[in-house]
Amino acid sequence: MTEAPQLTFDLDKPGMNKGHLIVPKGADCEALSLAVFSLNKGEGPRLLITGGCHGDELEGPIVARRLVEFLPEAQTCGRIIIVPVLNPSAVQAASRNTPVDGLNLNRVFPGRTHGSVTERIADAVSRLLLPMADTVFDLHSFGPGWDFPPASTTHPIADPELMAKTIKMAQAFKLPVTLVWEHPGSPGMFDTLAQKHGKVFVCAEFGGGTVNFEALAIYEAGVRNALIALGLVEGKADYPTFRQQKAGQALETRRSSDELKSSARGIFKPCCSVLDEVEEGDLLGILYPIDSLTADAIDIRSPSKCIVYAIRSGAHVDVNDVVAMVARPLIR
Amino acid sequence: MTEAPQLTFDLDKPGMNKGHLIVPKGADCEALSLAVFSLNKGEGPRLLITGGCHGDELEGPIVARRLVEFLPEAQTCGRIIIVPVLNPSAVQAASRNTPVDGLNLNRVFPGRTHGSVTERIADAVSRLLLPMADTVFDLHSFGPGWDFPPASTTHPIADPELMAKTIKMAQAFKLPVTLVWEHPGSPGMFDTLAQKHGKVFVCAEFGGGTVNFEALAIYEAGVRNALIALGLVEGKADYPTFRQQKAGQALETRRSSDELKSSARGIFKPCCSVLDEVEEGDLLGILYPIDSLTADAIDIRSPSKCIVYAIRSGAHVDVNDVVAMVARPLIR
Repeated sequence: MTEAPQLTFDLDKPGMNKGHLIVPKGADCEALSLAVFSLNKGEGPRLLITGGCHGDELEGPIVARRLVEFLPEAQTCGRIIIVPVLNPSAVQAASRNTPVDGLNLNRVFPGRTHGSVTERIADAVSRLLLPMADTVFDLHSFGPGWDFPPASTTHPIADPELMAKTIKMAQAFKLPVTLVWEHPGSPGMFDTLAQKHGKVFVCAEFGGGTVNFEALAIYEAGVRNALIALGLVEGKADYPTFRQQKAGQALETRRSSDELKSSARGIFKPCCSVLDEVEEGDLLGILYPIDSLTADAIDIRSPSKCIVYAIRSGAHVDVNDVVAMVARPLIR
Repeated sequence: MTEAPQLTFDLDKPGMNKGHLIVPKGADCEALSLAVFSLNKGEGPRLLITGGCHGDELEGPIVARRLVEFLPEAQTCGRIIIVPVLNPSAVQAASRNTPVDGLNLNRVFPGRTHGSVTERIADAVSRLLLPMADTVFDLHSFGPGWDFPPASTTHPIADPELMAKTIKMAQAFKLPVTLVWEHPGSPGMFDTLAQKHGKVFVCAEFGGGTVNFEALAIYEAGVRNALIALGLVEGKADYPTFRQQKAGQALETRRSSDELKSSARGIFKPCCSVLDEVEEGDLLGILYPIDSLTADAIDIRSPSKCIVYAIRSGAHVDVNDVVAMVARPLIR
């Protein structure tokens, strides 16, 4: 019989605490200890920050660790709980999904106490951490193989009041892009669960495969801006510099029509940059077949006037693989 | 009995030809057809350009395809042979090594006629293409998980005359870095074989995981600069713009002492940028343990005054994994 998940310290304890969230052992592996930071300064916003949901997206864990160093001096009120790495075995394996059971942690919420390890992680987070927060920042990145600008994202939410609050929170990151991303209808996402309980949930999608010094500085600035907007720390929020510009734009996308797919197998060459505004028919990329130099290369062109917000970063793609994603200015 | 490798056309035929290099079938898989481009304009330099040796380095195949489009109008003399993808099954699998036999193509030269598929590819290239060239450009990249500037590289060569010619050729790319990289003593590398036959061999190491529009423009400019230097095409060579600068520097490295390794397991956070000049003791990166917030993070510091030329781009690393590589100005 699997035991219940537990914390090694009391989240209601005032001040700073560092400990672990214990995910009980199961048939598939031993118990896990997820490192947890808590800074409880009493009244004020209650924020949960998570990183490392997917093991090949390491911007989140790095920015979360920076917050653990920064907050003890900076936080003025409220409560912040941070779990830098939700899925340690996926991080160690540099894989999106958990190696032991092959599951995507962001598709199994609220999890199952007696399920496989990924479900047990979701269950522990859902039971012990989520109820402590009014707002959640889940630090992801778009993952390797894509060029993607630093963005705060949300899916459309049925409740208009929660939608407005969520967009306002996402825009407070002051990242180059705030994206309202049409939901693919996948069950088990962390944001859907949090929103069901009326919480504001912002997913930071921190670019593609490059976790370099300059990119991390932008991501840290984005999260700090959001903490300032919540009133948890003092300071002046400002747009970080991205490609020589200090600006942000809000975009929305419809998942099915805004995903451009390859019509053949080949190596994809990007012919535009993310955040390029393109007209109908503009060249976005070229598919080169790898087995012939006489077979025609295939142009991928823009279906309409739009903004490119994600583009494959040099990959061999199969028929129907998504190679670019486009969006339009958010109108609300 | 494995048959001998063959070309589907005669490389001595004048003008442009597109065909295939047939790598015979063996016990492990069917015959492969590697697409080959040849433009024979008679007297002049004889150049072989190869890409896609490693399947997770797609800058080379993309730049090679661009050359196939550009050269018919631009080449004025000599002979150029291009194989955009040396290892198609590795490219399709996005893996460094060949999936079928698990071998690294750049460790099995000159290959074996009756060996496994990777050895048969090396054998076909060594027998039928390499003898046709005086100069070889092998288009690699540093691979995912690293931040690395566009660079032309060579290992040290015992013959001082060939070393000087090779460095001159590498510098003609006018990329941000020309790197003389101390040889790890690995047997079976393509460059070692070519150099044994007195050929000039330059390896282009085209950055890390990001194959975006801006990066590809730099790589294309580099190869075009080298073609101009060889006299194969007309034009004016110029440094491409990289991080708002148009410049190049020549560096050298000693493999063992210039590889900085992690002393523990953890997530590596880069704290400097590639091409930063650092002093002894400067912070290059931080290792964060993933299982505890009370265990100390570990600083990785520069051992001497040097230039950082490669740094891990957000990865979980184990003890003794290389996290940064440094170099010094080339003195010859």
